Amino acid sequence: MAGSTIGTIFRVSTWGESHGRGVGVVIDGCPAGLELSEEDIQRYLDRRKPGQSRFATKRQEADQAQILSGVFEGKTTGTPISILVLNTDQRSRDYSNIMDVYRPGHADYTFDAKYGFRDYRGGGRSSGRETIARVAAGAVACKLLESLGIEVTAYTKSIGPWEISPDRFDLEERDRNRLYMPDAQTAAEAERYLEEKMAQMDSAGGVVECFIDGLMPGIGEPVFDKLDSLLAKAVVSIGAVKGFEIGDGFEAAKACGSHNNDPFRVGHRGRVIKTSNHAGGVLGGISDGGRIVFRAAFKPTPSIARTQSTVNRQGENVDIQIHGRHDPVIVPRAVVVVEAMAALTVVDLLFQSMTSRLDRIQKFFGNNEEKNSY
Amino acid sequence: MAGSTIGTIFRVSTWGESHGRGVGVVIDGCPAGLELSEEDIQRYLDRRKPGQSRFATKRQEADQAQILSGVFEGKTTGTPISILVLNTDQRSRDYSNIMDVYRPGHADYTFDAKYGFRDYRGGGRSSGRETIARVAAGAVACKLLESLGIEVTAYTKSIGPWEISPDRFDLEERDRNRLYMPDAQTAAEAERYLEEKMAQMDSAGGVVECFIDGLMPGIGEPVFDKLDSLLAKAVVSIGAVKGFEIGDGFEAAKACGSHNNDPFRVGHRGRVIKTSNHAGGVLGGISDGGRIVFRAAFKPTPSIARTQSTVNRQGENVDIQIHGRHDPVIVPRAVVVVEAMAALTVVDLLFQSMTSRLDRIQKFFGNNEEKNSY
Amino acid sequence: MAGSTIGTIFRVSTWGESHGRGVGVVIDGCPAGLELSEEDIQRYLDRRKPGQSRFATKRQEADQAQILSGVFEGKTTGTPISILVLNTDQRSRDYSNIMDVYRPGHADYTFDAKYGFRDYRGGGRSSGRETIARVAAGAVACKLLESLGIEVTAYTKSIGPWEISPDRFDLEERDRNRLYMPDAQTAAEAERYLEEKMAQMDSAGGVVECFIDGLMPGIGEPVFDKLDSLLAKAVVSIGAVKGFEIGDGFEAAKACGSHNNDPFRVGHRGRVIKTSNHAGGVLGGISDGGRIVFRAAFKPTPSIARTQSTVNRQGENVDIQIHGRHDPVIVPRAVVVVEAMAALTVVDLLFQSMTSRLDRIQKFFGNNEEKNSY
Amino acid sequence: MAGSTIGTIFRVSTWGESHGRGVGVVIDGCPAGLELSEEDIQRYLDRRKPGQSRFATKRQEADQAQILSGVFEGKTTGTPISILVLNTDQRSRDYSNIMDVYRPGHADYTFDAKYGFRDYRGGGRSSGRETIARVAAGAVACKLLESLGIEVTAYTKSIGPWEISPDRFDLEERDRNRLYMPDAQTAAEAERYLEEKMAQMDSAGGVVECFIDGLMPGIGEPVFDKLDSLLAKAVVSIGAVKGFEIGDGFEAAKACGSHNNDPFRVGHRGRVIKTSNHAGGVLGGISDGGRIVFRAAFKPTPSIARTQSTVNRQGENVDIQIHGRHDPVIVPRAVVVVEAMAALTVVDLLFQSMTSRLDRIQKFFGNNEEKNSY
Repeated sequence: MAGSTIGTIFRVSTWGESHGRGVGVVIDGCPAGLELSEEDIQRYLDRRKPGQSRFATKRQEADQAQILSGVFEGKTTGTPISILVLNTDQRSRDYSNIMDVYRPGHADYTFDAKYGFRDYRGGGRSSGRETIARVAAGAVACKLLESLGIEVTAYTKSIGPWEISPDRFDLEERDRNRLYMPDAQTAAEAERYLEEKMAQMDSAGGVVECFIDGLMPGIGEPVFDKLDSLLAKAVVSIGAVKGFEIGDGFEAAKACGSHNNDPFRVGHRGRVIKTSNHAGGVLGGISDGGRIVFRAAFKPTPSIARTQSTVNRQGENVDIQIHGRHDPVIVPRAVVVVEAMAALTVVDLLFQSMTSRLDRIQKFFGNNEEKNSY
Repeated sequence: MAGSTIGTIFRVSTWGESHGRGVGVVIDGCPAGLELSEEDIQRYLDRRKPGQSRFATKRQEADQAQILSGVFEGKTTGTPISILVLNTDQRSRDYSNIMDVYRPGHADYTFDAKYGFRDYRGGGRSSGRETIARVAAGAVACKLLESLGIEVTAYTKSIGPWEISPDRFDLEERDRNRLYMPDAQTAAEAERYLEEKMAQMDSAGGVVECFIDGLMPGIGEPVFDKLDSLLAKAVVSIGAVKGFEIGDGFEAAKACGSHNNDPFRVGHRGRVIKTSNHAGGVLGGISDGGRIVFRAAFKPTPSIARTQSTVNRQGENVDIQIHGRHDPVIVPRAVVVVEAMAALTVVDLLFQSMTSRLDRIQKFFGNNEEKNSY
Repeated sequence: MAGSTIGTIFRVSTWGESHGRGVGVVIDGCPAGLELSEEDIQRYLDRRKPGQSRFATKRQEADQAQILSGVFEGKTTGTPISILVLNTDQRSRDYSNIMDVYRPGHADYTFDAKYGFRDYRGGGRSSGRETIARVAAGAVACKLLESLGIEVTAYTKSIGPWEISPDRFDLEERDRNRLYMPDAQTAAEAERYLEEKMAQMDSAGGVVECFIDGLMPGIGEPVFDKLDSLLAKAVVSIGAVKGFEIGDGFEAAKACGSHNNDPFRVGHRGRVIKTSNHAGGVLGGISDGGRIVFRAAFKPTPSIARTQSTVNRQGENVDIQIHGRHDPVIVPRAVVVVEAMAALTVVDLLFQSMTSRLDRIQKFFGNNEEKNSY
Repeated sequence: MAGSTIGTIFRVSTWGESHGRGVGVVIDGCPAGLELSEEDIQRYLDRRKPGQSRFATKRQEADQAQILSGVFEGKTTGTPISILVLNTDQRSRDYSNIMDVYRPGHADYTFDAKYGFRDYRGGGRSSGRETIARVAAGAVACKLLESLGIEVTAYTKSIGPWEISPDRFDLEERDRNRLYMPDAQTAAEAERYLEEKMAQMDSAGGVVECFIDGLMPGIGEPVFDKLDSLLAKAVVSIGAVKGFEIGDGFEAAKACGSHNNDPFRVGHRGRVIKTSNHAGGVLGGISDGGRIVFRAAFKPTPSIARTQSTVNRQGENVDIQIHGRHDPVIVPRAVVVVEAMAALTVVDLLFQSMTSRLDRIQKFFGNNEEKNSY
């Protein structure tokens, strides 16, 4: 148990179920002095909000973030920030028929196996609504990173067989289409594909790609808390993620060393740069000063309208038909969740890296002219 | 910093550099009463030992494990187990020429950026020798798991473009060839491929696949410490790993829900089974009682004999030629490292799962007829 | 930062300020199946509630606990339990005059030094209201312990110079007087003493004693996470605590070994008992099956009506007079806080102890007839 | 289990038993660039070394520290520092007669209760030799602190009834007498007292006092990881410690607020100082810039030559006579252990405090002109 906390210094604990009274998060370890408002958080929550397009669940939630602590006169105080999002639209009736039946591809059976029973209303803690808390915390992490010149950007790379073309890549296009794809043509094709899947009472998966710019070299802790290993943990912990790649990922396994090694060169102002980025900005688990690039593979939405074979709690083979409101694809709403998990990971490792060198620590404390003697 | 520890209850801390006095590990949280000898550990270390084939570095190390604490009269005592492997063959001279030059694809530059300087002898802490400590700890974890009926098995799935065929899969073959491939024909083809790469002063990558059998359902902690997210962290923390997949992985992103959902059925003795395993044995981050299947993508060995472009510590563009002893492919020696990281992850989550239900806790303590009153 | 979480398996994260929107706690790692209602928590909160006696602050708070997650159909689900207590009576005006002045004996100056500014309303996070979250979590821990036959009991041992007499010790008396003293005569004397202090615009301290009954031997983790060291941490973390003793405490430092050693004897049903308890139930940091006994020393309430010398944020010497509502003694309301911290510590160590022996682990998993194969 | 690690950023894991092959420690999170040699560690180990006086065990151990990793060319590299001290004088025979008998005041019974059996040779992991690892790590922490202008100093305050006089306090005297007492007259009296106890086949306890100078204000994390609560944990985790006090400790419980509050004043260069130090340098769990003062109560050595009543593993009442080499008082050798635990605690909290304010973080990263773009 006790798996609902992530981070060592910037520490995030989430709570809440799909059809309980709400979901929320406590952030402990956010430095004092960051300007923070409920609007800052709302902007991120709105990006994952349901009910915004044909391809997202019809459930209507205000998803209004309330900051309950840790902010005073518009700034963080250094004490825990508690953020609450009340559940307002919770038609539990929809789920009564699946109370005793294990939905394929869902966590119903495994929660029962683990806890002896479960909150069967809409998946309870295993619902996608759990990610609201991640996004709320991620919004704070992103604001922190921006104040240090670091930016996290994710988008839909593919849906089903439809993958964006590097030639047509246009980040601004991302926010213009409902699939968060930075390529209008592929987005249009993917939309048609999704409509087809919906007509077939089926669903689709896809890939989210994310990059991080402005990260200084030296971030990541050998040997277990490497930047890429903690990104992998954070990203794979998102429901429905089945794969993670950094840089060239599985392609690197087929490449030769002479191709895969990124040559170093002296760049502008004497900086060390690389002439390619197969590594995805990480060497030995530590950021190399270049762009961090990673990908997450999402499985198709498990809730499909088609009749499926399963068993019930009484141990009988039964058929199941899942009604209710479900996205035919999770990916577009998951884009901001991936950004959130990346930001949480980077902030925490950034803070950890502050103690890697004695000279910097001495300078840090030497500058604070506050030494006192009694 | 402080990244050299993994696990919450079964806690493993590693130390040591390639050319220092040795490498080692402290395991805290191993239960008392496990029979454990140095031979148990040696068996695993021997599987990653260099100098065993043409495709492995010529460095000759005894790699002899010594147990310094935590075992008494052949059994673990419940106190920390300290395991030491001395470095015996450390030709540091080999590395003097790369002292001031950053090898492409290595952690030389990032260690310097992080720490201000580095132990340049053979990669120091970023060397593959660091994995000795993982394997030693993994040997203990595997023994523990076996005593509970759980088995971890990994093998080489592919090297470069050569991937094993499901039709020819033969696990016993794995230990007969030098590439740890459970398919003799592909192994032969991959050997030829590696010889070609060596002749070209180049190197290759590959994929390791791992499965875990006998794991009861209910293991894994929502929402951040899921079984798959912690496997991802553990596996991606291995040097040279660039990708992780659970179950169908990136293929799932292209599939439809109707295909990807694994139907449940009632099996032998009323057990809940699935008629397919696209999920890889994990639902909602919790084991479902089926086989756990995951893969790790390894990049090609970065040390290649070919001349490469890079920079030195003085900020000049230079050429580098890497001499010394290096494997043209890491994958075969990494197989046991993958098993080790999987075992460490599973043991820790298994122990965490013991407190998921009050009824089981009550039974646990009720059975111990040792309550005392003063 | 990140100091608002306690526990490894039974993990408690608190948040909230005196005059923000509320205070709360997230409990992660509570096993599924514990019957839990808001009334269970309220019973404990009511014991620390202000406004109940002459010696407690006049502030009137409903202090109503709301369970926002983790409980379904009257039972814990194994997922995080979020408990919220809204602040309802927050006359912030009272504190405006101390906005720029550091109250002696308070954390005003140190919070400013740490965070650069602070929420000056009523102490913010350093207020005694922070303990509401501890007590709410402690109520859950106590309920868990009771279901395992373990009971935690605290009471006021002394106020100022007035200490209870062992001869008159009567636990039922504890709940009959306003000072939580299990000795009516001393309570009456202490009441007179407190009235005197109030008339002098002064305050008093005191000692809380706590014992834990029913704890099985074997609880506590050598060498840093001993039962007594974690009790010390938990108890000293309560605001105003300046000392901690286990067993004979500082008296033991004056005793001889021949007196201080507790002889073992064979007791009822062959149990190992001791004929004295100078150790307080802990040997080598591990419970010995006897009663755990410890004490906490509380300093006098720092808020006194008398004029005091101090400095302001502008660095000038000034006088300060503290108005507002303050207890002349903290101790009676702190009794339930001590119980809470003891219970949190014991639950967590109890859970950790479940993996100390392989034979018990094997039995635990062997009993679960749920192994599955795919 | 897993109790052998302490610290969040500066993380220390110890291992080893009294009569195994050695004891040791792994320090993870020590910044790069600290000059460190085996002599630095030896100086601290020599202060706790046995065989130095009539009042310390006759056991002769070289207690030679070897640094196995983490130091290169005389400086720490930022990677884990592994320190090993081999056991060289281990007359196990001495302990054969207590193999099946529980020594009163020792952890024999509780280890058996916890683990099912124990390493009975000299107490195994519960032996005082375990503190070698604490002292070795503490030596590194002290060196780090000194490089930041912070000094930790402990001494024997009392032995049995003999307590040093404030009037005769002379820190230099501490290192001149065998009891580590900064008062020659009391030391002489205590020596006579100890000889008496030895003649009576008995033992004595005592109190160690420690202060920390030069610590900047702002160190300590509310609410659970306060400076004083973590000092309490660290100090009470030392075997034989039964009490902890910060500042006036238990005396504060008897005082009035008007006496106990330390008035603030403007001091030299505008610094905030206090005109008394009843608080011991901590307000709200955060350092106030003044001297930190705390005390630890040690119980009398449990190993005494006198016949004692106890039980054996077979559950029979028996008598026991303990032979072997034992100190009649632990306190003098524990002084350096207290310093070590204080230093470990302070370093860790110092590092944690570096992220308490955004402005300082921005300055920290802004100063590093190493940002790179790919």
